Amino acid sequence: MEISKEQLSLVNERIAQLLRADSFYGHRLRQRGVDGVASAEDFRRLPFSEKKDLRDAYPLGLMSVPEEKIVRIHSSSGTTGKPVIIPYTAKDVEDWAIQFARCYEMAGVTRRDRVQITPGYGLWTAGIGFQAGCERLGAMAVPMGPGNTEKQLQMMMDMESTVLCATSSYALLLAEAIEARGIKDRIHLRKGVIGSERWSEKMRRSIEEKLGIEAYDIYGLTEIYGPGIGISCDAHDGIHYWDDYIYLEIIDPQTGENLPDGEWGEIVITTLRKEGAPLIRFRTHDLSRILPGDCPCGSRFPRIDTIQGRTDDMVKIKGVNLFPSQIEEILRTFPEVSSEYQIHISHLEGKDTMRLYVETNGSVDFLDLAKRIAERVKSRIGFTPLVKVVEIGVLPRSEKKTKRVIDTRYQ
Amino acid sequence: MEISKEQLSLVNERIAQLLRADSFYGHRLRQRGVDGVASAEDFRRLPFSEKKDLRDAYPLGLMSVPEEKIVRIHSSSGTTGKPVIIPYTAKDVEDWAIQFARCYEMAGVTRRDRVQITPGYGLWTAGIGFQAGCERLGAMAVPMGPGNTEKQLQMMMDMESTVLCATSSYALLLAEAIEARGIKDRIHLRKGVIGSERWSEKMRRSIEEKLGIEAYDIYGLTEIYGPGIGISCDAHDGIHYWDDYIYLEIIDPQTGENLPDGEWGEIVITTLRKEGAPLIRFRTHDLSRILPGDCPCGSRFPRIDTIQGRTDDMVKIKGVNLFPSQIEEILRTFPEVSSEYQIHISHLEGKDTMRLYVETNGSVDFLDLAKRIAERVKSRIGFTPLVKVVEIGVLPRSEKKTKRVIDTRYQ
Repeated sequence: MEISKEQLSLVNERIAQLLRADSFYGHRLRQRGVDGVASAEDFRRLPFSEKKDLRDAYPLGLMSVPEEKIVRIHSSSGTTGKPVIIPYTAKDVEDWAIQFARCYEMAGVTRRDRVQITPGYGLWTAGIGFQAGCERLGAMAVPMGPGNTEKQLQMMMDMESTVLCATSSYALLLAEAIEARGIKDRIHLRKGVIGSERWSEKMRRSIEEKLGIEAYDIYGLTEIYGPGIGISCDAHDGIHYWDDYIYLEIIDPQTGENLPDGEWGEIVITTLRKEGAPLIRFRTHDLSRILPGDCPCGSRFPRIDTIQGRTDDMVKIKGVNLFPSQIEEILRTFPEVSSEYQIHISHLEGKDTMRLYVETNGSVDFLDLAKRIAERVKSRIGFTPLVKVVEIGVLPRSEKKTKRVIDTRYQ
Repeated sequence: MEISKEQLSLVNERIAQLLRADSFYGHRLRQRGVDGVASAEDFRRLPFSEKKDLRDAYPLGLMSVPEEKIVRIHSSSGTTGKPVIIPYTAKDVEDWAIQFARCYEMAGVTRRDRVQITPGYGLWTAGIGFQAGCERLGAMAVPMGPGNTEKQLQMMMDMESTVLCATSSYALLLAEAIEARGIKDRIHLRKGVIGSERWSEKMRRSIEEKLGIEAYDIYGLTEIYGPGIGISCDAHDGIHYWDDYIYLEIIDPQTGENLPDGEWGEIVITTLRKEGAPLIRFRTHDLSRILPGDCPCGSRFPRIDTIQGRTDDMVKIKGVNLFPSQIEEILRTFPEVSSEYQIHISHLEGKDTMRLYVETNGSVDFLDLAKRIAERVKSRIGFTPLVKVVEIGVLPRSEKKTKRVIDTRYQ
């Protein structure tokens, strides 16, 4: 999607701001002699930035305004190496809440709703973003934070919560807990705002059915405000994003070339209004595509497709590139398996082996099901996995992000 | 302290609001035929309310505005029985932040400070209150949330945090961790905003010394916004409270009579501006007194003395009323013991026994110290405890509130 005049003008504001700052982007732009962008071609010549650049700027090398203007930091979890620290001005905090309130509106949440918030607070961007957006909209926040499923269910019943905010893994865990306790008729949920990880269509349906809700897919990254920069609508065909706050490109992850609308590639984001830590052409490693055409919901905001994974999720096995989403697509065609699965990749006796764990209930022939899944993977992807069928509930559920691929080849 | 005209007029606003509401206070006021207060005598005839009343109103019986105006709930922890749920309007949330920002200002915190926030988020009122006040002031919030001492210390060093917000127990735990690791010269703290539990003068001094900070004592209750309705000043002689937001009385906990300024009794609070859940003459069970006279700091806000305990902390042993603060007062006179102690009360062979555990370093004669402490307790309080002296670090440190009295007589 071509960058608009308004977007270019905001990018120039950001560049002017960054050139004044003693920050990572300030140095880089000065080094390259960039003093503005007059056209889309100019824009595409701006250098990409990477998570690694942000990490190297630890702790405050991204801060692009005088410190007195900063009111808050957030930080990525730092599970892999040093964390990234993102400083926010008061305006950034407000802009984030405006975008998040828009997300709730798109999901049909109103001032009459009671919104149970289960993501975590603190350095992570989740909980406080869900809460600020909810309060800005004027709905009632029930700020639970993560974990303590018993207390979550108790409050869900007592407060008659109507909206659940959660990761897909935790939404599924709560859904299964409600089913197991037989308390679905005491639950008043009608909507789910679900985010922070990739989830399959099958998992979404399972969550919707068990909780009796309509689920919306919210998008965002700690580096770019946090969750709330986009969400799916009632048409459930892709994610609208707020192009007055971000400019979004899709590039070929190998060559870095921009791809035409409709083609799959890596999401690259430039923040148009962020003050504390603007990002220029930040490579997200999330895989999606621009959805061309108008959305039946009538929103003028452009759409990307559901995130299909991350460029770094890709595993190469027996010479074939594999994304977990391809396995999901195949499992979706088997109504007898649950939405949970795990892929284990190991190197045994000189060759790569993939074991695929899937769940089913007890009424099917496990061996026959395993054989049929293995055949379908072979025919669609090109190699035969070892399929292990287990009882429903055997695979681990997580309160945060569920690990789908366990690759022990290089350990 | 007599109620002022402005305060009476705000109380009348609240009464008018409550009379329109289908809430606990609305019912009670209608039942008593109260339609306003014309004088201080009228005010003193208003019925008290108790934590139990608030609990009985679970879940939303305190809500005193139409639900569309509520943007958030908070809840007390509910360790004893049902929790209390307090609904907040957008204005309540803002009023709380205004009061909290005033607390930081009184502690000398500025826009240039970096404020490490260690209390918890979610239903509890702590974390988000500390953060909102900090952001409103314009300082930089480093929102850690509770626990994970290693990460706390790492961020404290890397972010060069200048202000620590914590419970006194957790502040002491961090102080001792810094001392044990020998990293004090890498810590940039200059102020501590410490709250949510009673702490002794000795504990405050120990925290200040080990962290190299000046510590301020912040006051508040979940039922009444949360922490932030008052704080100590540079004079460190009592706690200023915001009498434009609350009217505070001191009563005799037995008779319910108002006590003159300067006399010790129970704090009773009436909220003057709260919309979501106004409280009328709420008995806090916190023990303090109005400090008469002007404060050398020059602030016009009135003062209460440091909280000395809770009316329900009082234990009766061998016919004598005992408050843990009395033991603290005595231990303060022994420079060789640390600020930590525990009181165990049991009933053995037909009589009450009190064992008092105190900590010291290895260089003193334990038996002699125990004997001297026991004698001083006997002479000041009237009975002889069994004193056990242990090494420093033996008594448990807590990340939240430290339990001081363990009474096993009625178990």
